[in-house]
Amino acid sequence: MSVLCRPAVWVPENTISMEETLALARRLHPDHPKLPLVLRMIQNTGVAKRHLIQPIASTLSHPGFEARNRIYVREARSRIPDVVKQALSSAEVTARDIDAIVFVSCTGFAMPPLTAWMINELGFRSDTRQIPIAQLGCAAGGTSVNRAHDFCRAYPGSNVLIVACEFCSLCYQPDDTDVGSLLSDGLFGDAIAAAVMRGSGGTGMRLLQNASHLVPDTEDWIAYEVKATGFHFRLDRRVPGTMNVLAPALHTLAGAHGWDASKLDFYIIHAGGPRILDDLSRYLMVPPVAFRHSRATLTEYGNIASAVVFDALRRQFDEGLPEGARGLLAGFGPGITAESSLGTWSAPDLVRVGRQAASADGLLANVSPVPRP
Amino acid sequence: MSVLCRPAVWVPENTISMEETLALARRLHPDHPKLPLVLRMIQNTGVAKRHLIQPIASTLSHPGFEARNRIYVREARSRIPDVVKQALSSAEVTARDIDAIVFVSCTGFAMPPLTAWMINELGFRSDTRQIPIAQLGCAAGGTSVNRAHDFCRAYPGSNVLIVACEFCSLCYQPDDTDVGSLLSDGLFGDAIAAAVMRGSGGTGMRLLQNASHLVPDTEDWIAYEVKATGFHFRLDRRVPGTMNVLAPALHTLAGAHGWDASKLDFYIIHAGGPRILDDLSRYLMVPPVAFRHSRATLTEYGNIASAVVFDALRRQFDEGLPEGARGLLAGFGPGITAESSLGTWSAPDLVRVGRQAASADGLLANVSPVPRP
Repeated sequence: MSVLCRPAVWVPENTISMEETLALARRLHPDHPKLPLVLRMIQNTGVAKRHLIQPIASTLSHPGFEARNRIYVREARSRIPDVVKQALSSAEVTARDIDAIVFVSCTGFAMPPLTAWMINELGFRSDTRQIPIAQLGCAAGGTSVNRAHDFCRAYPGSNVLIVACEFCSLCYQPDDTDVGSLLSDGLFGDAIAAAVMRGSGGTGMRLLQNASHLVPDTEDWIAYEVKATGFHFRLDRRVPGTMNVLAPALHTLAGAHGWDASKLDFYIIHAGGPRILDDLSRYLMVPPVAFRHSRATLTEYGNIASAVVFDALRRQFDEGLPEGARGLLAGFGPGITAESSLGTWSAPDLVRVGRQAASADGLLANVSPVPRP
Repeated sequence: MSVLCRPAVWVPENTISMEETLALARRLHPDHPKLPLVLRMIQNTGVAKRHLIQPIASTLSHPGFEARNRIYVREARSRIPDVVKQALSSAEVTARDIDAIVFVSCTGFAMPPLTAWMINELGFRSDTRQIPIAQLGCAAGGTSVNRAHDFCRAYPGSNVLIVACEFCSLCYQPDDTDVGSLLSDGLFGDAIAAAVMRGSGGTGMRLLQNASHLVPDTEDWIAYEVKATGFHFRLDRRVPGTMNVLAPALHTLAGAHGWDASKLDFYIIHAGGPRILDDLSRYLMVPPVAFRHSRATLTEYGNIASAVVFDALRRQFDEGLPEGARGLLAGFGPGITAESSLGTWSAPDLVRVGRQAASADGLLANVSPVPRP
């Protein structure tokens, strides 16, 4: 059994509010023929604030792909250690206990991957498996959970560290002024998340089954154009409407396990944007409040790409869940790919006792929130 | 049990011989202070010929990172289908039987990864797991085998397709004239390899155990600098000497399985360069002929990065092996990372009968070569 333990999430000191984003859009693109539409779309994201690894003036300037990638590596090396330490500590393991590192990041590129640096600098064993994934964008949050789960299935009792390092602001391209780009400029934020999947023991989401699903013929709906100026994010206007085809994949996954995707106890969903959450709650026939953690991530941090699911999961930890609660975790991104998994909550012993008491009273589904660890 | 079946390997039509490479180096860098050293080093590689996806004139011109990456995607899409079909056919499976695709390539970048395009265009199921790895360079040949093996361990009976797509000539950087770059310009070649790992049945290398090893503090020995002009390959002069620290890791892997790494029946080794093969045979105390397949790949195709191990394995298939022969497969690359695995040969039924006869005569280690499939 593999348990995804409490994630650690770090966001940078620099922030930009919705009001500042709107003012910036007005200032930078006063004559853009679709400015009113862009402003309305940004307002509709509901993103109240985002965090950026550089002050806004530096974020807006493009010093070239090389300089940006150096910033990516420098900031990653400077910020990852504390996030990883916190994730290890929450899972009650040390770096020496980790057998594999799944490192997901689509906003910079390094070869060797940053896993090599982590092994050298952060105390991981030299035989730690390195699983770096750069090409699955926002879906990689789900991917990292699924590949960690697979690794624990392959090697029972092993532990996997997941790191999602996304500095989306380093992909800001001043010359891209199509509506999709301007919307993205107001949507994405920066963050680093880390979480340990324990092969035995641990408190959190006990993974049971995972699945991947590619929506046919949508390859260019979410994509990078690779240019001398770096990665240029392309977002098709049809993307927000993909939930009608992805919801059935989630039903299939749940159904294969004898569950009903509409009747789970918790949902950790990639918050690509508000429409994705709205539509998915409609197609899954669950109340909007079921996605409250994803929505809180979107509101407070913006779309932080592969790190969203970990921040939403962190919020779920804060709220607590009773032992055995059933849930779904899903990442969506380029492909269009959905990477989703099912799990039950593995609560601390204290709660397990409480749950047994509740069970005796026939109140399984209504156990009160657990004390926060 | 997972069996790595016969790889399919494709090399492009355009070739460049050793003589042409040397003449080119003389013509392009007549005043280079270290030209004699560079020429000697290129001659020492023993690379008689390499294959390039573009004619040499186009290879030498740099049309910009964007144009090059478009060529990468265009050529990959045009060439991969036949290689994949052949690999599926050799393994006697169809695209619908494949549960995961491990796609390794460090010479171009695409998001979504080419796995999404493969699923859309080549008949793979929409629930095929996509495992794209771009950041492990030459080591990714070994990585892809190991991650496919792990997947088959996690999901017994499943099938994994591996694709290694390396167009090294698209990383040629005319302005890089340090000795390491000029040597690389004379060493690397282009190729695509594909192979199926079958979770049940199949003829080939039956995977038993795998391992990863990072050589401490060698992160910048093999690395990309990421620039507006694309990926710039950096090769430290100390790289060829790393086998003294990597050989012990191979001994450890074999020892953990009760085997002696010096006494195996076959070796599929990444042919990074001649010194790597020479040193490794010395440190493992095996005769140079044990690495004949890797050496043949190096001689005929150059260093084709993550595709080397698959081409060497293809040659091993051509030569044949008796049922139960014990072997080692190892990829080396940035990190510096070694990704290695142990396996025994699973021969076609015909041979298995032959082997039983041989076994009765006590001739297990000297069974004659199997008929080629």
